[in-house]
Amino acid sequence: MDGYLFDADTRLGPAEDGAVPVTVTDRWSGPGSVNGGFMLALCTMAIARVLPFPDPIVVSGFFLRPGTPGPAVIRPSVARAGRSTAFGEASLWREGREVMRATAAFATLGGGSGEHPEFVGITPPDLPPPGECVGMAPGALPGISIADQLEYRAAGLPGWLRGEPTGEPSAEFWMRFRDGRPPDLNALSMLVDAAAPVVLEIGATSTTIQLTVHLRAHPAPGWLACRTTTNHVSGGYHEEDFEIWDSAGTLVAQSRQLGLLLPP
Amino acid sequence: MDGYLFDADTRLGPAEDGAVPVTVTDRWSGPGSVNGGFMLALCTMAIARVLPFPDPIVVSGFFLRPGTPGPAVIRPSVARAGRSTAFGEASLWREGREVMRATAAFATLGGGSGEHPEFVGITPPDLPPPGECVGMAPGALPGISIADQLEYRAAGLPGWLRGEPTGEPSAEFWMRFRDGRPPDLNALSMLVDAAAPVVLEIGATSTTIQLTVHLRAHPAPGWLACRTTTNHVSGGYHEEDFEIWDSAGTLVAQSRQLGLLLPP
Repeated sequence: MDGYLFDADTRLGPAEDGAVPVTVTDRWSGPGSVNGGFMLALCTMAIARVLPFPDPIVVSGFFLRPGTPGPAVIRPSVARAGRSTAFGEASLWREGREVMRATAAFATLGGGSGEHPEFVGITPPDLPPPGECVGMAPGALPGISIADQLEYRAAGLPGWLRGEPTGEPSAEFWMRFRDGRPPDLNALSMLVDAAAPVVLEIGATSTTIQLTVHLRAHPAPGWLACRTTTNHVSGGYHEEDFEIWDSAGTLVAQSRQLGLLLPP
Repeated sequence: MDGYLFDADTRLGPAEDGAVPVTVTDRWSGPGSVNGGFMLALCTMAIARVLPFPDPIVVSGFFLRPGTPGPAVIRPSVARAGRSTAFGEASLWREGREVMRATAAFATLGGGSGEHPEFVGITPPDLPPPGECVGMAPGALPGISIADQLEYRAAGLPGWLRGEPTGEPSAEFWMRFRDGRPPDLNALSMLVDAAAPVVLEIGATSTTIQLTVHLRAHPAPGWLACRTTTNHVSGGYHEEDFEIWDSAGTLVAQSRQLGLLLPP
């Protein structure tokens, strides 16, 4: 899928002494640094190289320093390869400094269906069809290059973007790659972190300290319906939950991050 | 606080060549293995030794193997010590095998208040006072030693315990140490994993693959009000969210775990 930008920009080189080279481009950046979810996706793909199962099911990333574009190396390692679940870790280094550390469990998704009970206590976002929603043109958010690669559509523009924060830190919207790349598990690890933090609706901005992503199913092609919510902002920190539902109405990813509020 | 069982059982020995010895007792076990949250608390306390800030704010643990009681070592290391946040990692080893791996960010909680916006979009569990709730006697759950060290009270016994699973995987209840130990951040890392999995209400049992805990405030003494919910059970996996509110009505911990359903 190298015709797609995400695939070209996550191409990992051959490992040398356990270090996997990658060039971090400036096409997946948020305000002031490379998007954390993008770096988490890179680390997850490097961990995949050393584990015997294909699918990340849970990935946890800690953000040690702001990510910058340029040549980097990722050092993946095996923690344990069990019979049905394997665990690995990776750290991403830029200019001799560790930028992030990720740990992941891998398995084969889709194998357990039918033998176990199923339960769904939440519903997908209740959005108008994408064609009836409003979006943003590429370049609408100067300096936020990741927003140029992704398409977002919602029933209306968010309050913070209209200059009228709503006071309610939550949002529902559609998301997809602008170049038509179909979603997959690697992309989901980024996409859960690819929207503006909803604390903007209470007049705050934030940086991610830690992000955990559960990957629950391979996404169907098409638009992804997203819901993001912050329920607790206190002492300078906040959590942010993110759900992604695919075009078949399946919950494919759930994430939670701990964010640090930035000085106003 | 060595007069309390949790403190006696989390006493870490002096490090030797970076390995911190600890004896994992059989007093904090769930069905068939040592409680994962208890091991996560041990790892977090070992990480605290090597970092310059006192308070864990987010801890992520991956459970590589079932934990067993006996002599163990924990190997903590520093990932990065920044100006206001520090990151560390620890792995717990038993009989030459890695049982769990934890990563944590530490800071000083309570420093940011006043400068940043606050928002609370959820409310504490709506429970009758503990004195009007029902509880369980120690020993009521044979083989689940952790339930002997903790006191749980709820408006009624859970459906699964009455032999009538409700079909609704959620619960609200009070919790505290039976011996009167006041809660603190170290204990919260265990307590978020110290109740029966709510998937019991849909007739399933489960083991934890990964657990992320956000520690949001130092808990006040007294009973802790807990809420635990599973919203998505599919493909043999489920998430479980857990909130702990202290006696002053403050949300002190939020956790999410990915669980693997066990064969019926």
